[in-house]
Amino acid sequence: MDLLIKNGIIITANESYIGDVAVDKGKIVAIGKDLSAKDFSEIVDASGKYVLPGAIDVHTHLAMPFGGTISADGYFSGTRAAACGGTTTVFDFILQNFNEPMLDAIKRRDELAAPEAAVDYAFHIGVKDVHGMLLDTIEDAVDAGVCSFKVFMVYDFGVSDDVFFKVLEKAKACGALISVHAENNDMVTMLTQRYLAEGKTSAWYHYMSRPEFVEAEADSRAIQWAKALNSPLYIVHLANKQGVLEVTKARDEGYEIYAETCPQYLHFNSDVYKREDGRNFVCSPPIKGEESRQALWDAIKRGDIDTVATDHCPFQSYEKDWGKDDFSKIPNGCAGVENMYPYMLSAANEGKLSFNKVVELCSYNPAKIFGCTQKGSISVGKDADIVIYDPQKDYTITCEKMHSDYDHTIWEGVSLHGYPVKTYSRGRLVYDNGEFLGEAGWGKFVKRELKK
Amino acid sequence: MDLLIKNGIIITANESYIGDVAVDKGKIVAIGKDLSAKDFSEIVDASGKYVLPGAIDVHTHLAMPFGGTISADGYFSGTRAAACGGTTTVFDFILQNFNEPMLDAIKRRDELAAPEAAVDYAFHIGVKDVHGMLLDTIEDAVDAGVCSFKVFMVYDFGVSDDVFFKVLEKAKACGALISVHAENNDMVTMLTQRYLAEGKTSAWYHYMSRPEFVEAEADSRAIQWAKALNSPLYIVHLANKQGVLEVTKARDEGYEIYAETCPQYLHFNSDVYKREDGRNFVCSPPIKGEESRQALWDAIKRGDIDTVATDHCPFQSYEKDWGKDDFSKIPNGCAGVENMYPYMLSAANEGKLSFNKVVELCSYNPAKIFGCTQKGSISVGKDADIVIYDPQKDYTITCEKMHSDYDHTIWEGVSLHGYPVKTYSRGRLVYDNGEFLGEAGWGKFVKRELKK
Amino acid sequence: MDLLIKNGIIITANESYIGDVAVDKGKIVAIGKDLSAKDFSEIVDASGKYVLPGAIDVHTHLAMPFGGTISADGYFSGTRAAACGGTTTVFDFILQNFNEPMLDAIKRRDELAAPEAAVDYAFHIGVKDVHGMLLDTIEDAVDAGVCSFKVFMVYDFGVSDDVFFKVLEKAKACGALISVHAENNDMVTMLTQRYLAEGKTSAWYHYMSRPEFVEAEADSRAIQWAKALNSPLYIVHLANKQGVLEVTKARDEGYEIYAETCPQYLHFNSDVYKREDGRNFVCSPPIKGEESRQALWDAIKRGDIDTVATDHCPFQSYEKDWGKDDFSKIPNGCAGVENMYPYMLSAANEGKLSFNKVVELCSYNPAKIFGCTQKGSISVGKDADIVIYDPQKDYTITCEKMHSDYDHTIWEGVSLHGYPVKTYSRGRLVYDNGEFLGEAGWGKFVKRELKK
Amino acid sequence: MDLLIKNGIIITANESYIGDVAVDKGKIVAIGKDLSAKDFSEIVDASGKYVLPGAIDVHTHLAMPFGGTISADGYFSGTRAAACGGTTTVFDFILQNFNEPMLDAIKRRDELAAPEAAVDYAFHIGVKDVHGMLLDTIEDAVDAGVCSFKVFMVYDFGVSDDVFFKVLEKAKACGALISVHAENNDMVTMLTQRYLAEGKTSAWYHYMSRPEFVEAEADSRAIQWAKALNSPLYIVHLANKQGVLEVTKARDEGYEIYAETCPQYLHFNSDVYKREDGRNFVCSPPIKGEESRQALWDAIKRGDIDTVATDHCPFQSYEKDWGKDDFSKIPNGCAGVENMYPYMLSAANEGKLSFNKVVELCSYNPAKIFGCTQKGSISVGKDADIVIYDPQKDYTITCEKMHSDYDHTIWEGVSLHGYPVKTYSRGRLVYDNGEFLGEAGWGKFVKRELKK
Repeated sequence: MDLLIKNGIIITANESYIGDVAVDKGKIVAIGKDLSAKDFSEIVDASGKYVLPGAIDVHTHLAMPFGGTISADGYFSGTRAAACGGTTTVFDFILQNFNEPMLDAIKRRDELAAPEAAVDYAFHIGVKDVHGMLLDTIEDAVDAGVCSFKVFMVYDFGVSDDVFFKVLEKAKACGALISVHAENNDMVTMLTQRYLAEGKTSAWYHYMSRPEFVEAEADSRAIQWAKALNSPLYIVHLANKQGVLEVTKARDEGYEIYAETCPQYLHFNSDVYKREDGRNFVCSPPIKGEESRQALWDAIKRGDIDTVATDHCPFQSYEKDWGKDDFSKIPNGCAGVENMYPYMLSAANEGKLSFNKVVELCSYNPAKIFGCTQKGSISVGKDADIVIYDPQKDYTITCEKMHSDYDHTIWEGVSLHGYPVKTYSRGRLVYDNGEFLGEAGWGKFVKRELKK
Repeated sequence: MDLLIKNGIIITANESYIGDVAVDKGKIVAIGKDLSAKDFSEIVDASGKYVLPGAIDVHTHLAMPFGGTISADGYFSGTRAAACGGTTTVFDFILQNFNEPMLDAIKRRDELAAPEAAVDYAFHIGVKDVHGMLLDTIEDAVDAGVCSFKVFMVYDFGVSDDVFFKVLEKAKACGALISVHAENNDMVTMLTQRYLAEGKTSAWYHYMSRPEFVEAEADSRAIQWAKALNSPLYIVHLANKQGVLEVTKARDEGYEIYAETCPQYLHFNSDVYKREDGRNFVCSPPIKGEESRQALWDAIKRGDIDTVATDHCPFQSYEKDWGKDDFSKIPNGCAGVENMYPYMLSAANEGKLSFNKVVELCSYNPAKIFGCTQKGSISVGKDADIVIYDPQKDYTITCEKMHSDYDHTIWEGVSLHGYPVKTYSRGRLVYDNGEFLGEAGWGKFVKRELKK
Repeated sequence: MDLLIKNGIIITANESYIGDVAVDKGKIVAIGKDLSAKDFSEIVDASGKYVLPGAIDVHTHLAMPFGGTISADGYFSGTRAAACGGTTTVFDFILQNFNEPMLDAIKRRDELAAPEAAVDYAFHIGVKDVHGMLLDTIEDAVDAGVCSFKVFMVYDFGVSDDVFFKVLEKAKACGALISVHAENNDMVTMLTQRYLAEGKTSAWYHYMSRPEFVEAEADSRAIQWAKALNSPLYIVHLANKQGVLEVTKARDEGYEIYAETCPQYLHFNSDVYKREDGRNFVCSPPIKGEESRQALWDAIKRGDIDTVATDHCPFQSYEKDWGKDDFSKIPNGCAGVENMYPYMLSAANEGKLSFNKVVELCSYNPAKIFGCTQKGSISVGKDADIVIYDPQKDYTITCEKMHSDYDHTIWEGVSLHGYPVKTYSRGRLVYDNGEFLGEAGWGKFVKRELKK
Repeated sequence: MDLLIKNGIIITANESYIGDVAVDKGKIVAIGKDLSAKDFSEIVDASGKYVLPGAIDVHTHLAMPFGGTISADGYFSGTRAAACGGTTTVFDFILQNFNEPMLDAIKRRDELAAPEAAVDYAFHIGVKDVHGMLLDTIEDAVDAGVCSFKVFMVYDFGVSDDVFFKVLEKAKACGALISVHAENNDMVTMLTQRYLAEGKTSAWYHYMSRPEFVEAEADSRAIQWAKALNSPLYIVHLANKQGVLEVTKARDEGYEIYAETCPQYLHFNSDVYKREDGRNFVCSPPIKGEESRQALWDAIKRGDIDTVATDHCPFQSYEKDWGKDDFSKIPNGCAGVENMYPYMLSAANEGKLSFNKVVELCSYNPAKIFGCTQKGSISVGKDADIVIYDPQKDYTITCEKMHSDYDHTIWEGVSLHGYPVKTYSRGRLVYDNGEFLGEAGWGKFVKRELKK
């Protein structure tokens, strides 16, 4: 057999115990106490280390055209960075073109992704256009293993409420899950124009033009449509307190509402936009005030946030600089794919939450919610997407240590306690102690299916 | 002195007692026990009758262009009907034209209203266009005594969220009150098109295309903007249960949110749309299900609905018939101005609520909320807008007994217990036992002011 | 006729206007503009002054045995003080003796009160014992015009939950209203013993032994019983935030729950117990923290507190001193009957709430809730219990200016803006600009009845 | 090695997958795909069957003195029945005697339990008396591995609020968990006496004397104390809707409140008390109305009920008959220990909830909440407490098939879909297809510890 990881502290979403993990042909084939070491090609001693399922980052934008440029990480560098941060599956958003059937969109992007991906990948489709028969092509995508779609309530390609509603209906009918970027477009546009007209052009006004209630209102509206249809709904990058309370209320009423937040909303607060380099933190929704930051942690604690993902969408400094004198020209997005799992695990290491909870948020729940049945746990039969984590290893994030293609990071200087030392993708060592060992094209498309 | 009404049971928003009311020069000049009857031109014995302030109907559409026609009651017939139903002040909605300054709109409509009005009248302005300097003309209207405005979230002249927000901001700054017709336009449009495309054309599908949640969502959104600005907001014709709960919640949080409902939402439920003549009941928002009807009465009981008004906007049968095979072609609106006060007082007479509460909902609160300081109560110094009500007189509503110009009414056949027998407008008898005694032009424009 | 008060600004619970008030034989017989002044024995010019209904203090303890002594104000001095503070009706609590039928209790106390009362008075009965047939004697009291009863959840004479429940049941059946002093007795006793055992004996530990949640729990429990029976309930001296929220919730659900608070809870916060003279502020429930104080004002604003009353129960300094080294020996209670109306009106004068609201809280609502149909408003037919208030007169409270028999007051040094200048009790001037003009025995027992 | 269970569908609280389970010396030593079968003493083929962790019934009353008798199942028959129903650990309640230190109580009962137990067992202590130094003996019990205690708010041995509070305080300080039987004792006593006095003596009046609100009030009060101390609290046998809502609210606020319900509350409703044999269903709290039953399932679905346990406390028919003419003489309690797991798994088999959820409620959560670190999952290192379940095997419960010592069961005639076919206790087969194979004394005391 291929690999035996011995004596690690195995962490799943709900258990922690010492044991050995046997891997063969890319799968976990046995877990045991003192498994016999003979017949293994390779034996790794994980004593004193944690053996975790690889993270599943369900929110990345690789090679994404936005704001007149393309996000800094392509499929190769993005997945390389993922591997080096303990993330073994990334979900990328395909932005449908107008008039484009869903299958065409998948094909168009998979042709880019397949030769480059260093870890496994899945797709969501960002829906722009469902006029005429296009709506029905959602079913084709579901059949092809892309069973999750996203609607944007903002941006020029955002959809109106009726389109959102129709997409939710269709998704419910064919076993797909809709996620939503919830901000009120009219309000954002108006406030943006107002601040610019008043000469208020700094990054702080990016925050001011998308205040807490602008996100909260859209959360509330999105939930209203899901309730009307009794359909599931997944809210991406939830960042504001009132929205959190709306999610809790809807769940108490029995509705299937999922919520995701991102590390940047958990670590920073809106004060970053007052910094000289505030534009580097510009993403949408913007990072909110301290009260919202606390509310997100509280919601994690009581179980009302299901997943943590990155919204990874870095841009280069020169691109961010386009908005030096006009916040509306700053490409929206920040780095994160290499930082999420280390950041969250470090929080666990410091006692803020349990390691099991981190695995639940970053791996088990993403797999379960989005139908990655072969991933999300250190369990017999699962893909051998495994991270070995050293809780003793301290680490300070710097851009130069990262494995992306960007030239700066909002995480610069953040100190972590504990860090991944090895990442296995389907049994193959793709990262070892700071070094990327994988290759473009190793990553496979993850075909998914959701129970209706 | 002009008039002495003796020995009636005087009803105000919070008291009931027997007394005499003395009127001179259009005002109530004294209230007392056994006031000396000498020096009065006229003495009316109101023993065993109730002496009430005239109702103030803050929601009527007279001579209103809508759906390719004009509402059946003009300023004369509408105010005549009002007088005959115990309503001594009507608020009419001026629909601003595109590009029209607010003062021009007032002037345009007041020229129609002034020569025709048989009772006093005030205006709200339905805001369509606030681009450029038009927004500031709101202040001019406030200075001219028109301090309340309405935004529509539906119809082709409805406003987007950003415009709504800006109007709320302006209103807060200059001491105006914004009311809102809350339904989600995108959803209504989509559902309407869907049902028509499916051949579902009956009046029932008017209800189905504007389901409960479509109104509830808009209520919630409107309240969100008011909360963001900490500005007052008045929700017209609230008809759905979830919206009621949203109002209650916002008020509990300390926000100044007012709610109005209409008699048709209190008396009928959505079953009317299954009737052969269902199209006659078509109004927007449509009459909702029985659970919503009960919720409205509950909210009245606990004080979370402030006013009852009519949304009076009748159309002739031949006009309603335009939508026989296409519900979207039915002009929206029903009669009510002559029925509201009798209907609500009859409910009090049957013990469903107190007479004081009816006076509060139909006269005192409208006066207070909208700044009609000279009206709304039987009190010394107020305009002598007085109704004498006979609690023993039974009455069955029929179209032919009504004093409007329409040819049918949704209230046909409804039986009431008790009915107004006399109406005085500023001391002048304008209605007596079934007969209209007023005249066009008697009614005066009511200039209003709200405390900032 | 007896008295004409001219040109004052008449304030009722919902209106303010200039007018004349005519009084004859102890009743208000007319209100008008420019009433003819002939035929009046006395004419008072109230120009620039407010003409208010006298306050109704529904919570006083006169000559009450408590903690081994008797409260400092008897029926004469207590009602004298009331008159001088603009309060024209006081409700006193009769504490039933064990084994005493309710009528006997009324008789016992009325014999003391009748010869001494300087203003009108009514009784609640504090129920201690309803075993056997005593429960049914509640009906006798109702027939005798004492239709309100109080249960204590604390003190050695407090009742257990089952007795509370049975009293509520009986009250509902016979048209009585139950009020409740809500604190958890077991908790208070335990915490008191604990702090004393730990040598924590200062007045601060009176507060600590009756913390916010001890009152909140009892509020919640009391409301639970009222909900189970769908019976009305009146919570006296509500002082804590959580309790306020419970009241709001129950009212939203449609239950008839009334809440009273007291001026001491609105003006002071728990910091007073840290003062050297903290024991003088000892009352139960104790004055709570600042957050609770704010919550009470918020509840007043949104209408979830119905009445303000005093819980007037002063003790002399030497009695308060008994607890200098043991807070549990401090007689519970503070002065207030002369301060409530001036304090609340001063708050209105400063813009914190409207004068109408003060009248509602201190006169109209007390009259309405407790069935004093002849009082609570400046209206034709009501008793001429009238206060003339000078909004320009500043006043600083000192013990020596007060008309009680106590030797200190918690209100010492509090500055007010505006002050009553005249008080009329049924048309008789009983207070004039600092001087008491009434007499013992003038006050009459107020027989009351509540609608079932 | 001892045992290999091959090819079963392994079910844990969050996963389901096919695999082999290897057992040695009472522990699970490996889980794998196609584990080599050599070196095993015994091999069991579980193809098509489910391999589940044994249930942990955290609520049983064995050999319990109550109502003048002793519950029908002693430690042997009770644990025998448990084994035959797939329950491999039972928690028994020790009722402390007055004046008895906690360690003495443990010793007293362990002497009975140790020689008789056929499966592993743990103890909670029902606290009656904590006066003087007894309170501190709670710490001794914690040190001895009994870290959970129960307070009763009802019965003659129930505790007052202050004692409850002190026990909660002590528990928080020393790492213990308090559970509570929440009903209001005064109300129960009063209503019981009332109905008996009125000649209402049937089992239906057991329900009527403990109505929904009597439990709800006590839930609310118990939660209040836990909130005041910010201490964890475990509510046993939650049976009413309002209580469920209180739990949800407290959890939303961030408090650590656990809730347990029982199969009888999930399957039956209060109609059973109208049956001729209604007395057999008498337990406390009584089974509630249908609305409460639904609310319990809803709470399970949304995660606000943590555990299902039985409150197993059967009595013989002749004992139940004592209350034929007086419901208060019916010994309280019903059978369940052999039925819980089969009942819940059958519900999963019918699609009402997932098998994972049943494992979570009946095994994983009980282990986690009460500190049974060695149990609750099919995982490497855990005790080999394993159930093999045949989802195809239909089963109708009859008393004669049961393995308790009682002579009737409330579950008589209930049909289940699927049934356990084998139970292993620490690797030993103790139940096989209807037959008990264990022995008295095999079961060991489970020493527990909770993280502070």
